[in-house]
Amino acid sequence: MLRLSRFLPSTSRRVCDLKEVLWSGSLTFEHALSTSAANYDENASARKFASYTVFKGKAALSISPILPVFSKLESGASRVNRNGSVMLTFFPAVGQRKYDYAKKQLFALSPTEVGSLISLGPAESCEFFHDPSMKSSNEGQVKKTLSITPLGSDNGYFLNISVMNNGQKTNERMSVPITKAEFAVMRTALSFALPHIMGWDQALTSHPQSPSSAPASRPRVERPNPDSEWDR
Amino acid sequence: MLRLSRFLPSTSRRVCDLKEVLWSGSLTFEHALSTSAANYDENASARKFASYTVFKGKAALSISPILPVFSKLESGASRVNRNGSVMLTFFPAVGQRKYDYAKKQLFALSPTEVGSLISLGPAESCEFFHDPSMKSSNEGQVKKTLSITPLGSDNGYFLNISVMNNGQKTNERMSVPITKAEFAVMRTALSFALPHIMGWDQALTSHPQSPSSAPASRPRVERPNPDSEWDR
Amino acid sequence: MLRLSRFLPSTSRRVCDLKEVLWSGSLTFEHALSTSAANYDENASARKFASYTVFKGKAALSISPILPVFSKLESGASRVNRNGSVMLTFFPAVGQRKYDYAKKQLFALSPTEVGSLISLGPAESCEFFHDPSMKSSNEGQVKKTLSITPLGSDNGYFLNISVMNNGQKTNERMSVPITKAEFAVMRTALSFALPHIMGWDQALTSHPQSPSSAPASRPRVERPNPDSEWDR
Amino acid sequence: MLRLSRFLPSTSRRVCDLKEVLWSGSLTFEHALSTSAANYDENASARKFASYTVFKGKAALSISPILPVFSKLESGASRVNRNGSVMLTFFPAVGQRKYDYAKKQLFALSPTEVGSLISLGPAESCEFFHDPSMKSSNEGQVKKTLSITPLGSDNGYFLNISVMNNGQKTNERMSVPITKAEFAVMRTALSFALPHIMGWDQALTSHPQSPSSAPASRPRVERPNPDSEWDR
Repeated sequence: MLRLSRFLPSTSRRVCDLKEVLWSGSLTFEHALSTSAANYDENASARKFASYTVFKGKAALSISPILPVFSKLESGASRVNRNGSVMLTFFPAVGQRKYDYAKKQLFALSPTEVGSLISLGPAESCEFFHDPSMKSSNEGQVKKTLSITPLGSDNGYFLNISVMNNGQKTNERMSVPITKAEFAVMRTALSFALPHIMGWDQALTSHPQSPSSAPASRPRVERPNPDSEWDR
Repeated sequence: MLRLSRFLPSTSRRVCDLKEVLWSGSLTFEHALSTSAANYDENASARKFASYTVFKGKAALSISPILPVFSKLESGASRVNRNGSVMLTFFPAVGQRKYDYAKKQLFALSPTEVGSLISLGPAESCEFFHDPSMKSSNEGQVKKTLSITPLGSDNGYFLNISVMNNGQKTNERMSVPITKAEFAVMRTALSFALPHIMGWDQALTSHPQSPSSAPASRPRVERPNPDSEWDR
Repeated sequence: MLRLSRFLPSTSRRVCDLKEVLWSGSLTFEHALSTSAANYDENASARKFASYTVFKGKAALSISPILPVFSKLESGASRVNRNGSVMLTFFPAVGQRKYDYAKKQLFALSPTEVGSLISLGPAESCEFFHDPSMKSSNEGQVKKTLSITPLGSDNGYFLNISVMNNGQKTNERMSVPITKAEFAVMRTALSFALPHIMGWDQALTSHPQSPSSAPASRPRVERPNPDSEWDR
Repeated sequence: MLRLSRFLPSTSRRVCDLKEVLWSGSLTFEHALSTSAANYDENASARKFASYTVFKGKAALSISPILPVFSKLESGASRVNRNGSVMLTFFPAVGQRKYDYAKKQLFALSPTEVGSLISLGPAESCEFFHDPSMKSSNEGQVKKTLSITPLGSDNGYFLNISVMNNGQKTNERMSVPITKAEFAVMRTALSFALPHIMGWDQALTSHPQSPSSAPASRPRVERPNPDSEWDR
């Protein structure tokens, strides 16, 4: 198979043993991380990576947050230039408690998709579609679908990814059952991450110099409220 | 139309193209931001701006948090002098996927209004009234109303703004439908922002020197509890 | 009245005008703050104060968080020596939109009392009793009671304080109706404050040096897990 | 009894008096803390400890968060090498308001176990099993069980620990009733702790240098999105 031959040669050492992973209490994809860290920015050395990973019979799912990117404005302030996301990484089992990370499929949840996931009722499902070539001539060639469907009886959800490649005539599917407890971890971690991937935590961080030096006994009402909704 | 002529001349370059916005993953209103940053304080250069924006057929809505302002007390400590808020910015569509930010209408949610929004039940609605000239001779001349009404069947809400100007005989209205997923983002971001716009995050930040140097083995019961509710 | 004479002389200047307070968007009790800051510790100058205050017809209620106190251990680490709290301050109206802060009554919520308040169902009520002389010979002389009772129809709560002083034969009562929206602010702010008043935010803050310098490729399984539940 | 003789000799001084504990508002286990701090890392001096402790008739339960451990990657970045946990410490009453901390039993909740606890419905129960010798020749010799069962009528839960030692033919059991208010504290503190014990707070902390220096007016669309789900 073409697809396999493309990925397997360089990845045999990256097949990870679940026993080792469970012992250390945390899975890391060192190759992936260092690559993406290099892509990221020059300050990779200060970066920290964290994820939440569940290993199931046929596949595993790892979830990790990605920071937004700020840009400097001419005023010296900065603003969110690109929202962060929550990256879902699916990778298949290739033996008992062995997973092949090289066959991974990625799905990056936008803030609104995160909102959809954390507000999902016990019997509800949702589905997201991504197209890497959106708005280009290749639009529709590759189609990613993430669907979340209830396991039934308030018992968790199935997370299913499907990647259809019309050019390569392939359709990859992976499915990971998530227990109610695991989904509670995801919901809590995603709710925590949401304001951060939108940069709200940074917008809400005050700076040491910000308290005005005017004594509190002098009310500042003579000046119009600078953040007023009435200024246009 | 008078209203149009007031805003259009200077704003043609600020009509933003949705395609561009969606590609960059985040909308920014540079002109607006740099202006308001200049108003704010001298430390604008350290400021960071973030928002959550949804684009719909007839209008868009952008939500962003605004920090509280602290004032120094004579003791050297500081306290909240003016609460922050969550600013809602509505701006109309002026073509397919084109929006005119110059025709924006602002509505600044107070902490209690944020509390109202985040505790809204699926079938409930709420309405807020703001008057920029409250307690002045112009009271009642301009009236802003924000109403939030359910879309039905636990499917999200309509956010409607109306700005009635008795002097100019105008009544601007914009309405943005918010899906359940988008409202979950708003609820999560606003719940996160609420303690921050009230300054509680800063009041709850301990300072490096705060641990007392008394060894833990020596209980400090001889001194009355300084934060006691019994001192008056 | 004895009680009044005790408080009124020095407090005429502290009767605050609601109009002024509403304009500035935040109430502060400068005298109270600077006094308590002085009691607190030497680093008062770095402290920041924030509150959430609601003004009603007969009384006002202000809520503000109080930090825990840490003590140094012999190892150089530190631990919570006294939990923080959330202070409720009730003060009566003494005219239209005028309040007398000198007649205030305080009630400091412990972490568990905060837990009780934030988990209160729409039709539930709760009641807390405090005795400043607990475990002393004066036990029972003064008794504070805070009760929270539903307003009915999922419309908020009454917060009632009663301070009974057997020695002075007085029984002060104040009652403040809290809307559903205001209670949502309280619930959100108290949920945010809870981990902080217990010091969990500080216990969960990592220190710059904490990442081990061992390269990630060398698993550290040869050493027993130091945080293991199996060590005794 | 063998078990008693093993623990009592060195621990008489560590029997703590509840009165003292309640007065100081916070329980600390100094010996335990300094020992575990020494195990931890070299930076123990900067560490802070916090817990939430409830004292009941037959036993007490203390809950405290434990940080994850990060490891440096070759790139200079770091990643979670071992997840943190939330440690439950049970210790029995040995007299009226006296507890023997030396007879403590520990149970460290993993992120998923924390997820199970915080998503527990009012009438639901859950049970966790830990084996210190998992995957070794002694597997099954010692078995720890934590079960959480409802008290009934939405009134809280029983937290029961059982430690069965087949070699020593012992089976220790302790049970602590937790009120609804106390469980709300646990749920709030654990929800707060969860992203921290997984290291997400650190992964979501931006670094001062991270805003790109490119002016905001120059969109960076020419470069492929580095965090894209489309890169493999």
